[in-house]
Amino acid sequence: MSLLSPADVRFTDSFWAPRMRTNAETTLYAQRDQIETTGRLDNFRRASGRKPDLPFQGIFFNDSDVYKWLEGAAWSLKTCPDEKMAEIVRGAVQDIVAAQRPDGYLNTYYACDLADQRWTNLKDMHELYCAGHFLQAAVARVRATGDTDLMDAAVRVADNIAATFNKDNPGACGHQECEMALVEMYRQTGDRKYLDTAVMMISARGRKPPLLGGSPYHQDHLPYNELEENVGHAVRMLYMNCGAADVALETGDPDLKKALDRLWNDFTGRKMYITGGAGARHEGEAFGGPYELPSRAYAETCAAIAVVMWSARMLCMKGDPEYADVMERALYNGVLSGLSLDGTQYFYENPLSDRGNHRRKEWYGCACCPPNLARLLAELPGYAMGVSDDTLWVNLYVRGEARFALKNGTSGTIRIDTDYPWDGKVVVTLELDRPSEFSLKLRIPDWVDAASDSINGEMPVVATAGYIKEHRLWKTGDRIELNLGMTPRTWQAHPRVEGARGRVAVSRGSLVYCLEAVDNPGFDVWDARVDPRAEWTPAFHEEILNGVVTLRAVGSAADSESWGNDLYRPAGPGTRERAVTLTAVPYYAWANREPGPMTVFI
Amino acid sequence: MSLLSPADVRFTDSFWAPRMRTNAETTLYAQRDQIETTGRLDNFRRASGRKPDLPFQGIFFNDSDVYKWLEGAAWSLKTCPDEKMAEIVRGAVQDIVAAQRPDGYLNTYYACDLADQRWTNLKDMHELYCAGHFLQAAVARVRATGDTDLMDAAVRVADNIAATFNKDNPGACGHQECEMALVEMYRQTGDRKYLDTAVMMISARGRKPPLLGGSPYHQDHLPYNELEENVGHAVRMLYMNCGAADVALETGDPDLKKALDRLWNDFTGRKMYITGGAGARHEGEAFGGPYELPSRAYAETCAAIAVVMWSARMLCMKGDPEYADVMERALYNGVLSGLSLDGTQYFYENPLSDRGNHRRKEWYGCACCPPNLARLLAELPGYAMGVSDDTLWVNLYVRGEARFALKNGTSGTIRIDTDYPWDGKVVVTLELDRPSEFSLKLRIPDWVDAASDSINGEMPVVATAGYIKEHRLWKTGDRIELNLGMTPRTWQAHPRVEGARGRVAVSRGSLVYCLEAVDNPGFDVWDARVDPRAEWTPAFHEEILNGVVTLRAVGSAADSESWGNDLYRPAGPGTRERAVTLTAVPYYAWANREPGPMTVFI
Repeated sequence: MSLLSPADVRFTDSFWAPRMRTNAETTLYAQRDQIETTGRLDNFRRASGRKPDLPFQGIFFNDSDVYKWLEGAAWSLKTCPDEKMAEIVRGAVQDIVAAQRPDGYLNTYYACDLADQRWTNLKDMHELYCAGHFLQAAVARVRATGDTDLMDAAVRVADNIAATFNKDNPGACGHQECEMALVEMYRQTGDRKYLDTAVMMISARGRKPPLLGGSPYHQDHLPYNELEENVGHAVRMLYMNCGAADVALETGDPDLKKALDRLWNDFTGRKMYITGGAGARHEGEAFGGPYELPSRAYAETCAAIAVVMWSARMLCMKGDPEYADVMERALYNGVLSGLSLDGTQYFYENPLSDRGNHRRKEWYGCACCPPNLARLLAELPGYAMGVSDDTLWVNLYVRGEARFALKNGTSGTIRIDTDYPWDGKVVVTLELDRPSEFSLKLRIPDWVDAASDSINGEMPVVATAGYIKEHRLWKTGDRIELNLGMTPRTWQAHPRVEGARGRVAVSRGSLVYCLEAVDNPGFDVWDARVDPRAEWTPAFHEEILNGVVTLRAVGSAADSESWGNDLYRPAGPGTRERAVTLTAVPYYAWANREPGPMTVFI
Repeated sequence: MSLLSPADVRFTDSFWAPRMRTNAETTLYAQRDQIETTGRLDNFRRASGRKPDLPFQGIFFNDSDVYKWLEGAAWSLKTCPDEKMAEIVRGAVQDIVAAQRPDGYLNTYYACDLADQRWTNLKDMHELYCAGHFLQAAVARVRATGDTDLMDAAVRVADNIAATFNKDNPGACGHQECEMALVEMYRQTGDRKYLDTAVMMISARGRKPPLLGGSPYHQDHLPYNELEENVGHAVRMLYMNCGAADVALETGDPDLKKALDRLWNDFTGRKMYITGGAGARHEGEAFGGPYELPSRAYAETCAAIAVVMWSARMLCMKGDPEYADVMERALYNGVLSGLSLDGTQYFYENPLSDRGNHRRKEWYGCACCPPNLARLLAELPGYAMGVSDDTLWVNLYVRGEARFALKNGTSGTIRIDTDYPWDGKVVVTLELDRPSEFSLKLRIPDWVDAASDSINGEMPVVATAGYIKEHRLWKTGDRIELNLGMTPRTWQAHPRVEGARGRVAVSRGSLVYCLEAVDNPGFDVWDARVDPRAEWTPAFHEEILNGVVTLRAVGSAADSESWGNDLYRPAGPGTRERAVTLTAVPYYAWANREPGPMTVFI
């Protein structure tokens, strides 16, 4: 399956479309101000000689933030045309392209006085990482609006990389990213050497002697195909999985696919937060061991974004619904919590419980997450639907429409009407250029308690999690109605997840919920208890958090205060409890009101 | 209360005395080899000009490891005389003293080419920390064996510090230690300026603008007297508490005492592992928030040692038994786990659960913990007993004897006969130089389920936790028998300790127990369950772990394997369980046999 281009899918819903508008109108502007005031754009002007007297400003990999912002802006300009932003982008493009060296090399940190140190420290210095993000921005720009200005420079960057690193002179980056980018360059240009370079980069890791220091942190301790588990820096590990999946999609390499399957099972079976977040450990921003998933998670926003990216690639490769389930889980929870409702503040870390001290910030010195959110939001329509041979796939339900064309000549528009993620009724209608025989695959998410579908009003059929495949001669006006049961559900974690033992998390539809202090006066949400069989009552509240469905249940609050200053006591009867009403809100929306304790697991 | 000198207390038991012998015969020799082969001693020879052509080797604060080793060797030579080690120590003393500069300054990192950068980065460079450990070594050496060679140099080091930093030119170290050392120098020499300098160092933190960067990591965000909780790097925080307690013991400063009380309550009520360990977070080797005590603890060995040191100082200040309880808890559990049974390998981190990957090592690049263990073991008899006015205090029960003298003229020997920590019967006999009226305070630990004492065979009296105070006219031959109930007990943690909810830890006497895979074949100890009311049966096993009491109970093992690759499931009935026998061993002894899963909380 191939995903449709973001250019061919339009969201008109009240959940994502406003967020994409906020991204276009607020977030991307604010980020542009940040990359300007923090010297990130000046670094390009310094490199090009326009501002030769400036010192290099910020962290050595700051170019990448500019590129991610540019990638987001590229797609956003397609979705939400904006001449002012278009002009800003053109200016930035000029600044960037002017900083490129005659041999194609482009990196502002190594532009001037440090030019003789290029490529001397691949392990630490993120040169290929930055280059990769540049290539991604260029590919996005040409695909979104047809502008080739960045792409011309990108070809020269990629040629420079391919000329520098190859089988005889292997190289890869301490921070993976360039693998994905080179495969995209191959897809965009058809030049096979980019794919070959990406293949080489995957296989460059885990050698003896090691190229990148040999540490698990850098995923350089073992060859990729021998990895049994996701280890080390979470974003790097997940970006490598994305790159490996991209390579496998193009080459079909069976060993790579086997490794990807193992790593997927390790992630989703042992190392994934219920929010789709990744990375248990603060030290090293890293994966923990199996089942090491403390609620005081690191769960970097970029890592959840990488989970979306990896899931989408696995979905394209294998077509199994579990990949779409994880993609949706990460998107609606672990990713979206990274952004404030007003689109101006960001989380770097996304813990599953907090005492009220963890708040979003407008920017970070290491600002990887903010522009990563911006580009994901701008590209989001591209994740919703896909095509393969004679099949049209619907992976995410968002009100809107998409143009599609299948290899068998079918073409037309598919319309989705739904109030997802708040309501599970989904109506799909087709408008075909001519009646055509093809398959329609509609995803029934793994969280449904009960689902049914009916075509053109025929008797509804009970459906189970997975893709429903309807193959027939379709014609304009055909209408499929899905009813995805959104009864609130409680979940328990594997018994070896230490912090979750004896606790449950609550979800409704694709959304994981949490208790926040502001909705639960009179007790500390960390003291809340609930019977796993308790009934949670949903209700839409337009007045809070831009409109959310809250969930309420009768639970109890333990009298932790009665412990006083005791930290350990002889084991005996439990702490006294009193009945309280628990009110849960979607996890993505937490920390947008007064600070206070929060918890996902109850 | 003042603790007796280690010189006046002799242990003859089968638990600590062999460990002190191993320390003298194995550990201190192995550490000497390590500090020699890693260039730590060569750094002094380089500084003194004996080996001028060598570069500085290792980490900038490596001098401190030599000093801690020397402090341990100083006391060990008193307890376990050893002419070979005495000669080695004399050689090291000569190497060190020769490296001192004419103005008294002593630090090998800043000895040669970097001499002009002395004291330019107090926040990071540990100069005062290293100096403090030198002063401690010198004080130990003169107190233990009367050798003044180091003390002469120490006076010049301390004079140099006092001349450099004072109220008009305040300074303190990013890594606290020197505060304690200067108070000891004051106690040893009577020179008030050393105490004044320590007072200044405590008050130098938390200023605006900050002297040390202003971070909580360095405890420089608030003045000490305004601290409400233990924060930042755990060893630094705890060493500061020790230094503040030393100052308060000498000055009686009521504000300092109030701050110490607050910080003590914060530590023992919200941030102390059940092992007495400290420091929940790997990142920054730091304290976590309240109740943030994951079993994947950092719990650095040095931090547990600092807990012993702080507890002892609080005990001296206030005489309350809770301080001795914590001292004992940390000593027998969080500290002792840091050392392998054969005295040659060390833990830096002391987690409360593990999958079998965490193993002790022979040395560390940052080798603070190994010589810290060596000096604590060498000085341990000094923590057992104390005197105040007309009272003799027994804080720790270890078979042995001590010479004591009270202000009222009483003097004599107290003998302790016990098989502690394996058996709770303790017989105290007195041999007095003349019959004397005084008080004897005997500690009843907080873990006793039942305790009794009887004097000269009189009817036993039921005692409760705390110090029993017996005031009478004592004579030689008087005999007090204590019976401290050592029924195994289970403990629950405060409900806000996430990883411990619904779980219990098992202890017997002063020892916290754990389940290790090697004693529990057929199931994974992480899957073990036990009724909090289950009976644990103790039995001494001479053949394992140098002889330990094991605890056995009937419990169950959850069938985690049945979860397969599921990480989250709809909440429902619990996992199937089957009855198994659980065998627990003392936590301090874990990881001395085959690697495998381990857990304290069950």
